[in-house]
Amino acid sequence: MSKEYFFDDLTVGQVVRSARSIRLDRERILDFAREYDPQPQHLGEEAAAGSHFGVFCASGWQTAATTMRLVVETMPIPGGGMGAGVEKIAWLRPVLPDDELRVEIEVLAKRVSKSRPDKGVVTTRTTTFNQDGNPVQTFDTVVLMPRRPGG
Amino acid sequence: MSKEYFFDDLTVGQVVRSARSIRLDRERILDFAREYDPQPQHLGEEAAAGSHFGVFCASGWQTAATTMRLVVETMPIPGGGMGAGVEKIAWLRPVLPDDELRVEIEVLAKRVSKSRPDKGVVTTRTTTFNQDGNPVQTFDTVVLMPRRPGG
Repeated sequence: MSKEYFFDDLTVGQVVRSARSIRLDRERILDFAREYDPQPQHLGEEAAAGSHFGVFCASGWQTAATTMRLVVETMPIPGGGMGAGVEKIAWLRPVLPDDELRVEIEVLAKRVSKSRPDKGVVTTRTTTFNQDGNPVQTFDTVVLMPRRPGG
Repeated sequence: MSKEYFFDDLTVGQVVRSARSIRLDRERILDFAREYDPQPQHLGEEAAAGSHFGVFCASGWQTAATTMRLVVETMPIPGGGMGAGVEKIAWLRPVLPDDELRVEIEVLAKRVSKSRPDKGVVTTRTTTFNQDGNPVQTFDTVVLMPRRPGG
């Protein structure tokens, strides 16, 4: 686990990178798709061949969830962050079996909460890359974070 | 499985409702959190009690993924939809253990694709409700759909 981040530790423009990558192998892609996104392009090579997409790839929601796992490890928030929502998700390239995903988190904006002055609101853009260094997804999230005690 | 929907079958303003709900019990919430979102508020009552959120609840990403499962069942797209991205996700209320989720999908906009005239681009707003009829999440997605052959 990395060091924990309080609101006060972040600077607009700062970029934090994941220390590791996560590989989405065939079985993990199928497990997720069967439970959450059973569309043909996510259910194996044969089903995908008959799909409009034409290529067996991970659900975009699995890419997003895997990205969240890397974000939680890379920028742990003391006591947990409170996600208010997501401004945007863009799926840029398919995530293929055995792709290895890593993330870069950029701080886009921050402000102290008006209603809860012990907390701050931080907007970040997280870009998820595959093992070739190509971006597969970006998402912008807004999270309520604690301020550093006595900070 | 419901009837399949082509681009041409949808009208702006139309609302389609899921035929069933999905229950997120304690084990499903924990399984997802351990793999994708291991923050204290998602890891059981005890861990959550020490979190800023204070309440054991499902990851918002699990709510989104469960919503996708209901969308795939409720509005199946022939050959699979191609998700271009998500405009916005808002998490409105925590999803608690044993909550039962259902969805309503509203067609916000549609247009024929300029680059691929055999397909159309459809924007929908999906609202996810709990068993008390309270909205827990909305997301707006943009999907590329096939046009009805000969339509």
